[in-house]
Amino acid sequence: MGDLKRIKAAMVAIGDELLSGRTRDINIHKLAGWLTTRGVDLTEVRIVSDDEAAIVEAVNDLRARNKYVFTSGGIGPTHDDITANSIAAAFGLQITEREDAVAILQGWYDKAGEELTASRRRMARIPDGADLINNMVSGAPGFVLENVFVMAGVPGIFANMLSDIDPLIERGVKLNSVTIRGAIKESEIAEGLEALQADHPELAIGSYPGNMEQAKKKIRGVSVVIRGPEQAVLETLAKKVADLMRAVGADP
Amino acid sequence: MGDLKRIKAAMVAIGDELLSGRTRDINIHKLAGWLTTRGVDLTEVRIVSDDEAAIVEAVNDLRARNKYVFTSGGIGPTHDDITANSIAAAFGLQITEREDAVAILQGWYDKAGEELTASRRRMARIPDGADLINNMVSGAPGFVLENVFVMAGVPGIFANMLSDIDPLIERGVKLNSVTIRGAIKESEIAEGLEALQADHPELAIGSYPGNMEQAKKKIRGVSVVIRGPEQAVLETLAKKVADLMRAVGADP
Repeated sequence: MGDLKRIKAAMVAIGDELLSGRTRDINIHKLAGWLTTRGVDLTEVRIVSDDEAAIVEAVNDLRARNKYVFTSGGIGPTHDDITANSIAAAFGLQITEREDAVAILQGWYDKAGEELTASRRRMARIPDGADLINNMVSGAPGFVLENVFVMAGVPGIFANMLSDIDPLIERGVKLNSVTIRGAIKESEIAEGLEALQADHPELAIGSYPGNMEQAKKKIRGVSVVIRGPEQAVLETLAKKVADLMRAVGADP
Repeated sequence: MGDLKRIKAAMVAIGDELLSGRTRDINIHKLAGWLTTRGVDLTEVRIVSDDEAAIVEAVNDLRARNKYVFTSGGIGPTHDDITANSIAAAFGLQITEREDAVAILQGWYDKAGEELTASRRRMARIPDGADLINNMVSGAPGFVLENVFVMAGVPGIFANMLSDIDPLIERGVKLNSVTIRGAIKESEIAEGLEALQADHPELAIGSYPGNMEQAKKKIRGVSVVIRGPEQAVLETLAKKVADLMRAVGADP
């Protein structure tokens, strides 16, 4: 799909719990779908630990070659929340307690009848020059620094912050996709698919073996996914893929 | 946990479908838990697209600084399966059809009464000098090249290949962990946790807000996870964390 001007994005998911197997990340999948519907390509994701050097390297690598970088995790009130400091370090900026962020937190804790303790004030520490990202779930803000969007790891808050930054994200050419499923092995249509891909270098044709349902039974099959900007072209190709599948006995 | 000699590993999950949001990866989570039980630290994961340059960069970055690198995806029979070629390129090696791999595939397709077509033979292309990884699910092998383990993306096959390579993985000091849950906000115990972490730099103390169940109701709470080699030390610390939670009204 080299001909289309694409908008590129990357993600850094931060947290020891993702690398130890304690937590199965969901934010990557959420962001991937969210960007796809906006015509933005997620080009790479890195999962790194709660380690400043690791965060700095990942963010600096990725912000240099993507229009947007999104991070998740590590912006809470506890000692293991080091993302804000690490982002400041990545940009070579100071990080200080910001009045507008303190005011937001104060408002939330006042409403809850709780105290804005020192730990909670940690969440108002924001690298110099960043804009805040609203958090309508629990108050503590994320922030945007140049092209880097720093957001929470808790899935409900991550999703809420995406809504807040939505107006800031440029839309690309939205890719449509069609999926053709058949109860075959992908190797049975591999040559046909390769020829179709060669004829249509502007499209992305993927072949994914997996489980599917047929007559209420779970059987092995393959899903062929074709992605491209023009739905009519995709539908023509989908018919050809279905023909490939029928030629080897499937009922796609 | 700087004092312990740790065995470091990384993962490269390969596939456009993971970055478009079509597929939610499960192999990362699987590998993370598998390594943890073997005392091996997963230090970083990268998710990259079906793109040779991206695969080469990720594999070369990570194999230089980890004892092991594991890849998933892109070793099937279709045109979008470019992992074997990309690994050969990363190492600057030739890739050829290997007799032992052809023999394995021939055996599987003979048994199924099917033909070893040209597309299927693609799966016998292995970089020079690699050892094969058995695939007891569908035949087509993975391979090991130096410290890089190249495995399938289909979760059942990925898991099966892990069993095959298990004897090759050195065991590290296995970390135990204890988890203490309480129906509190993590900010309420943040200062206490920070002090415990400062007293025990040899342990990793993580604080994770999330949903928990209490009296059959789903409520917000926090899980504190302490990881370290000695169970007795963890249990002492767990009592201290429970005390922190009780001091703010929880019943951990």
